[in-house]
Amino acid sequence: MSESSADRIVSELRSWISDAAPGARLPSSRELAARFGASPVTVQKAMHTLVGLGLVESRPGAGSFVRGGRAPRTLDFGWQTGALRTAQARVPALSTPMRDAAVDAIGLHSGYPAGELLPERAVRAALARAARADAATSRSAVGGLPELQAWFARELGERTPAGVTPPAARDVIVAPGSQSALSSVFRALTDPGQPVVMESPTYWGAILAAAQAGVRIVPVSGDGEGPDPDDLVRALAETGARVFYAQPNFQNPTGVQWSPARRERVMAAVRAHGAFLVEDDWAHDFGIDADAVPMAAFDDGGHVVYVRSLTKSVSPAVRVAAVIARGPVRDRILADRGAESMYVSGVLQAAALDVVLQPAWRSHLRGLRTRLRERRDLLAASLAEHAPALRVERMPRGGLNLWARLPDGADADRLMRDCEAEGVLIAAGTEWFPAEPPAAFVRLNFSGPDPSRFGDGAAAIGRALRRQRVG
Amino acid sequence: MSESSADRIVSELRSWISDAAPGARLPSSRELAARFGASPVTVQKAMHTLVGLGLVESRPGAGSFVRGGRAPRTLDFGWQTGALRTAQARVPALSTPMRDAAVDAIGLHSGYPAGELLPERAVRAALARAARADAATSRSAVGGLPELQAWFARELGERTPAGVTPPAARDVIVAPGSQSALSSVFRALTDPGQPVVMESPTYWGAILAAAQAGVRIVPVSGDGEGPDPDDLVRALAETGARVFYAQPNFQNPTGVQWSPARRERVMAAVRAHGAFLVEDDWAHDFGIDADAVPMAAFDDGGHVVYVRSLTKSVSPAVRVAAVIARGPVRDRILADRGAESMYVSGVLQAAALDVVLQPAWRSHLRGLRTRLRERRDLLAASLAEHAPALRVERMPRGGLNLWARLPDGADADRLMRDCEAEGVLIAAGTEWFPAEPPAAFVRLNFSGPDPSRFGDGAAAIGRALRRQRVG
Repeated sequence: MSESSADRIVSELRSWISDAAPGARLPSSRELAARFGASPVTVQKAMHTLVGLGLVESRPGAGSFVRGGRAPRTLDFGWQTGALRTAQARVPALSTPMRDAAVDAIGLHSGYPAGELLPERAVRAALARAARADAATSRSAVGGLPELQAWFARELGERTPAGVTPPAARDVIVAPGSQSALSSVFRALTDPGQPVVMESPTYWGAILAAAQAGVRIVPVSGDGEGPDPDDLVRALAETGARVFYAQPNFQNPTGVQWSPARRERVMAAVRAHGAFLVEDDWAHDFGIDADAVPMAAFDDGGHVVYVRSLTKSVSPAVRVAAVIARGPVRDRILADRGAESMYVSGVLQAAALDVVLQPAWRSHLRGLRTRLRERRDLLAASLAEHAPALRVERMPRGGLNLWARLPDGADADRLMRDCEAEGVLIAAGTEWFPAEPPAAFVRLNFSGPDPSRFGDGAAAIGRALRRQRVG
Repeated sequence: MSESSADRIVSELRSWISDAAPGARLPSSRELAARFGASPVTVQKAMHTLVGLGLVESRPGAGSFVRGGRAPRTLDFGWQTGALRTAQARVPALSTPMRDAAVDAIGLHSGYPAGELLPERAVRAALARAARADAATSRSAVGGLPELQAWFARELGERTPAGVTPPAARDVIVAPGSQSALSSVFRALTDPGQPVVMESPTYWGAILAAAQAGVRIVPVSGDGEGPDPDDLVRALAETGARVFYAQPNFQNPTGVQWSPARRERVMAAVRAHGAFLVEDDWAHDFGIDADAVPMAAFDDGGHVVYVRSLTKSVSPAVRVAAVIARGPVRDRILADRGAESMYVSGVLQAAALDVVLQPAWRSHLRGLRTRLRERRDLLAASLAEHAPALRVERMPRGGLNLWARLPDGADADRLMRDCEAEGVLIAAGTEWFPAEPPAAFVRLNFSGPDPSRFGDGAAAIGRALRRQRVG
C-alpha cells in the first residue's frame, strides 16, 4: 500500500530531522526514492506530510530544509476566562479523602479500606474469568447485566417484609460506582436551582454531586438517632423540596444509624410531602455491632431511591453500584445514565457478580465484621490514650470511620496540616458540612492504615493538639 | 456471637414460614431455645426481627403466628408525576444504535464493530494481566493512570507540527468512554440554557449529552468538505455561543472528513470568536483511504478540547476514553469528572494501555483498515445492486458507516419498521439531526454484521423501498 511506504519515509525522516541542525538540507527527492525503493509520488507525499507537520520547509529550486526550531513558548490561555463566562467553576475539585498518601504515611484520611480487608483472591479470580468470557469483548445493556440486576434486587428483597412488594430486577440500574449513581439521581430528580434537603454534616461526595447538578442544598440538623424530624418537615414545607438525601445506616462521617422511631417519622414526612428519599446505603457491607437495615426494603410506593455500591467492599477497581427505583423516576434515571455513559463495562459487572455469588463472599463479610470491630476499637483506644482532648462522640455501630470533635478553640485545618508534617493524614470535618459546622471535627478512617500504626497516628494528633494549647 | 445465632434462627424460621399456612402457630420461645441451643434473649431477638419483617405476628398470651399473605398489590406511583415537576424528562431514552439485535438478525443499525474486527486475543490477555496486577484492587488517580495519560498525549504529540507545543500527560483526563467525556465537557464549558453549535446532522450521542447538560443546540449546515464556514461564523456571532462540537474526521453519520481549506476557516472562526472547538475524534483508528488528522494537533492555544475513545477499537468492555484540554478549562473538566465518578477503574485503564503498547496493535490497525475497506465496498455494491433507489452520497474515507439518502417521498421510520419485520435492523437518519432533516436518510453500519449477509440485508431494504413505491 502506498500509504504505508510514505508513512515509513516520514517516520525515518522524522527521526533523522530530530537529530539534525535547523537549516540542514534534506536528501533530494531522487536520492530518497532510491534509498527507500519508493516511487517519486510516494516520496513527494512523504515530503508533503513533513512540510504539513512544520518539520521541513521547501524552497523551490533549492531543495528541502529542516525548519529552524523555536524556543518553547509560554502558552497563554487567558482568553478562556471570558469564554468560560463564570468567575469560578460550579464544581469544586475533589476532597481530602481522595488524596494519595505517600507509601510510609499513616493515611487516616482516606475513604477506602485497606487491601487486606478486600476479598482479593476472589476479585482476581473473577476478573480473570471475566477476561475469558463474552463480557470481555461485548457491549452491555444500558440498565446492566441482567443477572447482576437480579442480584441487587434479591439483596433488597430479602429484607423486604411481607405485605411490601419487593423490587424486581428491572427496577435496578447498574452504574459505574455510587458517585455516578448519585450524580444521575440528582440530575433526574431535580432541575438546576431546585432545593435538595441533606443532613449537615453529610457525605462530601453527595455535596459534590449536588453542586454538579446545580441544585441548592437545604441543610437539616440531626442527633445520634438520625435527622431532626421537625427540622426535616420544616425544610420540606418551607422550600418545597421534593428530595431528601441521606445515609440512614452508619452515616459517613458520623456513623449514626437511624433509630426505628426516627425511621418512621422520616418516612412519614417524606410521604406526606410527596417527596423522594435518596437512600445512600454506602456501608451496607460494613455492619459491625448491627446490620444495615435499608429503608428501601419497607417502601413499595416509589418514595425511596436506593443506592448501593460494591466499590468499597469488593474492590475499588470493580466500580459497580446500583440504583433501585420504581415508577417514572426509574425511567428518568435510566435515561440519564444512558446519556452519561451508555453502559457499564461488562467485565466489571461480570466480575462483581462472580465475587458476590461465591460462597466465600458470605464468610468474607463475617470475617470483615470482626476485623472492622478490632480496628475501630483499637483506634478509639489509641486516641483515648494519646489524644484525650479529641472526643469521639459515639462508637459507630458500622462503617469505616470515627468522627471526633475537637476541643473548643481548636482549628481543624491547622491540625490537618500539622499532622501531615509528621506523616499522618487526617481529614478535617469541614468537607462534610454543607452548612457552617457548629464545632470543629475530624474524620479518621480505621479501615485504611495498618493498625500497628494507630498508636503513632494518635500520638501525632495528640502532639499537634497540644501545640494548639488545647490538648 | 449472639448476632449470628439469632440470624440463624431467623433464617431457618423464614424458610419454615415460607412453607407454612397463614395463621400457623410458631413453636414457643422455650421450644425454639431448646431446638437451637440458644438463650431466651437470642430467641426473643430473632422473633423481634421476624415481627419487624412482617412475617410473624405476636399475640400476647396466645403465641406467635405466621401472618396472612396479601394478594399482590398494584403499585401506584402517580404521586411522582407532581414530584418530578416537569411533564417530560429533559433527557430522551437511548437511540436505535444501542438496541440489542436478535442473534439471527442482520444488524446494520449498531454503532459497534463486530468482534472479529477487535484485537480480541490481546484484550483477553491484557485483562488477565490486569487481574493479577495492583490495578485489580486499588483506586486510580482522578485524572487517570499516568502511563495511559502519557500515551494519549504522545499519540496527539506525534501529529503535532514543529512550532506547536504538544500536549503534556497532565493535559489528559481519562474518562469511562467518550460519552462520559462529552457529558463532562458540555457541563464544564457551559451552563444550562447556553448555546452550543453543532452540525446537522451530527452524532446522536452528542445531541443526547447536550440535552443532559441542558444546553441549547444551534445547528449549522455543511457539505462534503465540512461545516459551512459562513454559517458557522453567523451562528457564533448571533448566539454568542462559545462552543462548537464537531467530528472533523469521518463524521458519524456522514463520513465527511474536513478539507484542509475548511479546517483553516473553521479554526479561524473559532479563534476569532474566543470559542472552543470540541473535537470528537471518534474514528481515529478507523481510517480507510485516509488517516484521521486531529485538529487538536495544530492548536496549542487551548481552543480545541479533544476527545478520543478506545471503546470501539479496543473493546466495548474496555470503556476508556481521553479528554485532552489545556488551560483553566482542563481543571473544570477534571472537577466535573471527579464529581461525576471520582475515577475510572484501574483494571480497564491498565488493560487498555497494555493492548495499545503491544507491537500487535499497529499490525492489527493495518489489518483493520483492509477489512473495513472490503466491508465498506461490499455493502455499497450490495446496495447498488439490490436497493438502487438508495443513494450513498459519498464513499466515506474512514469510519464504520454508510450514510444513504432515501428517494423523495420515502419514509425512513416506515422503512426501518418494514426492514425489522424481515430481520434487518437499520437506523433512520432522524436521530442524527438536531434540526429538521432536509431529506430522509438511513445510516448503515458496515462494521457490525457478517459481510456474507450484506446481500440479504440490501435486498430487504430494496423490497421495503419498493413497497413504498419509491424503489
